[in-house]
Amino acid sequence: MDAAPAKKRALERLDMLYALGGGRGANRLGGSDAEQQACEIAAAWMEEAGLEVEWDPAGNVVGRSIGSQPDLPEVWTGSHLDSVPAGGRFDGALGVVVGLEAITSVGACERTLGVVVFRDEERGCFGSRAFVERGSLPGYYVEVHVEQGPVLERAGTPLGVVTGIVGYTRREAVFEGKAGHAGTTPMAARDDALAKAAEFVVRVRDAAAAIEGAVATVGSLEVEPGAANVIPGRVRLTVDARAPDAERLDRLLTALGLDPEPQNAPAVMDESVRAVLREEIERLGLPPLELPSGAGHDAGVLASAGVETGILFVRSLNGGASHSPDELTSEEDVALATEVLAAALRRLAG
Amino acid sequence: MDAAPAKKRALERLDMLYALGGGRGANRLGGSDAEQQACEIAAAWMEEAGLEVEWDPAGNVVGRSIGSQPDLPEVWTGSHLDSVPAGGRFDGALGVVVGLEAITSVGACERTLGVVVFRDEERGCFGSRAFVERGSLPGYYVEVHVEQGPVLERAGTPLGVVTGIVGYTRREAVFEGKAGHAGTTPMAARDDALAKAAEFVVRVRDAAAAIEGAVATVGSLEVEPGAANVIPGRVRLTVDARAPDAERLDRLLTALGLDPEPQNAPAVMDESVRAVLREEIERLGLPPLELPSGAGHDAGVLASAGVETGILFVRSLNGGASHSPDELTSEEDVALATEVLAAALRRLAG
Repeated sequence: MDAAPAKKRALERLDMLYALGGGRGANRLGGSDAEQQACEIAAAWMEEAGLEVEWDPAGNVVGRSIGSQPDLPEVWTGSHLDSVPAGGRFDGALGVVVGLEAITSVGACERTLGVVVFRDEERGCFGSRAFVERGSLPGYYVEVHVEQGPVLERAGTPLGVVTGIVGYTRREAVFEGKAGHAGTTPMAARDDALAKAAEFVVRVRDAAAAIEGAVATVGSLEVEPGAANVIPGRVRLTVDARAPDAERLDRLLTALGLDPEPQNAPAVMDESVRAVLREEIERLGLPPLELPSGAGHDAGVLASAGVETGILFVRSLNGGASHSPDELTSEEDVALATEVLAAALRRLAG
Repeated sequence: MDAAPAKKRALERLDMLYALGGGRGANRLGGSDAEQQACEIAAAWMEEAGLEVEWDPAGNVVGRSIGSQPDLPEVWTGSHLDSVPAGGRFDGALGVVVGLEAITSVGACERTLGVVVFRDEERGCFGSRAFVERGSLPGYYVEVHVEQGPVLERAGTPLGVVTGIVGYTRREAVFEGKAGHAGTTPMAARDDALAKAAEFVVRVRDAAAAIEGAVATVGSLEVEPGAANVIPGRVRLTVDARAPDAERLDRLLTALGLDPEPQNAPAVMDESVRAVLREEIERLGLPPLELPSGAGHDAGVLASAGVETGILFVRSLNGGASHSPDELTSEEDVALATEVLAAALRRLAG
């Protein structure tokens, strides 16, 4: 297949999917008619490409290019077609569209190749979770996804290899003080809940900055009673903490005085898949930049289920704008991702 | 007059005023029927004590004990009878009730003595402001008021002499950042509005603590967008800053990066009146503790208008609970305040 029409086709397909739900941005919420339409369109593209299409009970759809040794574990790529409300053009859809182009360009291998669409990813990877519960897993899974952050853009490079999906936890913390008259209570006699909470907010930032690859965010904070002339008596805030591995997440939470038990364990990407992706990126004369993923992906679910998994990140422009119509990835970067993915699948499928 | 019945009468009168508005706590809002009733009751007590009662156009009422040299500037005491909603038993009412007892006990002097009820103090000293605008001011004004703070209780002493009413200003500050994904934006790439605001909150506390007699409070703080997994893009907060004199208030505001122009200038109490109050406190074997007032009072309006003014603070129990039914001052402390006020008025009125 000629590269130029394939490149053009990928962008046309992203446009088509983007328009499905109507309204501003992508609107293909998990479980919506628009998500179902997107899956049916993708299945039609798979059939058109000569793949064998199979729907599973959770609505996930896979298109297979049967290998010469079909009893060997399969090699899959793919992503999701649901979106957040008013989402971006590339999140999820890129991995499906590019995956289909890559499989088509690879042709016949020893192992069977598959491109999968997982359902309802944005609200908690429900499709891929249902998939791994049924068993019958592929031998490798390589997902292409937009970065959803600014790291590749800042590094000036189009592609990155994900080392792992961070573990994360979300907590609420409450700081108690004693409300009092802002004019008549001397500083030394105060128990100001907001002053204590503010010190914690600064500590959250500094503790995360001191741990490589960790992030922590106080995104919401509420003050009671919240009057200009009353010393705050109570502050309630949230802490979102993430780190590339359990050790670092534990260290971060412990530094903040929080219970280190994480809610979502980190998922480590397979070193052999990472090596293949790095080598194929280098073959294009690009730096094999590696980075963690701060957001969850279907690939994390498959990795946690024991599948040898890799993620190829594609540069997000606009400062990494994500879950927004501002999300932007260039046509050139999409083509580079397709090329690296195809080469990686070819090597993994033998 | 015997001290014991006077002491008992003062507390009974405070109870009577406290019950006027109905509901929980004192409810004699400025301009309400309950405030008007309270003023009429006070006027009746004045007449009963043989004073000459006069109402001014703003509704302020003064009872005079005419001196032997009625052309000399007059010496006044008093306070207000309005309250905040669900207010305390002593705030304002104490100064009127004790003032009337003191004048009655002093008897005839060279100068005319007056006990005044100013209207609508809590919402901005409207009565005393109207009074000073009409001119015809007394030569001295000495107000008894509950402290509304914990300083005297902590010092273990019933009475204090106010050095001045703090200057204060209230500002809004806005911190701008860049909203972003809490998982995918590395710490080094963040512009977190709440982290900046939190550093400011800590600086507000530390800057005020470093300046003797100053206080500063961030009482309200709002985070946008305020979602647990989004880096705050904007924070809006209030700063209430107060200091005993303009120099310290300027220094405090400058340390916080705020325009030092204050909205409410400090009011300095007259040194000769302060000296009289200190000496009369010492005569009772008590320490002549001096302290600033963090809240505004009618005395501040009179001092700013050029009247030689003093304030005698009476210990607030319950940690200085104020503007609340928890406000509490003991019968013994009320009696001590009456004694010191009477002695001071006698000296000032000659």
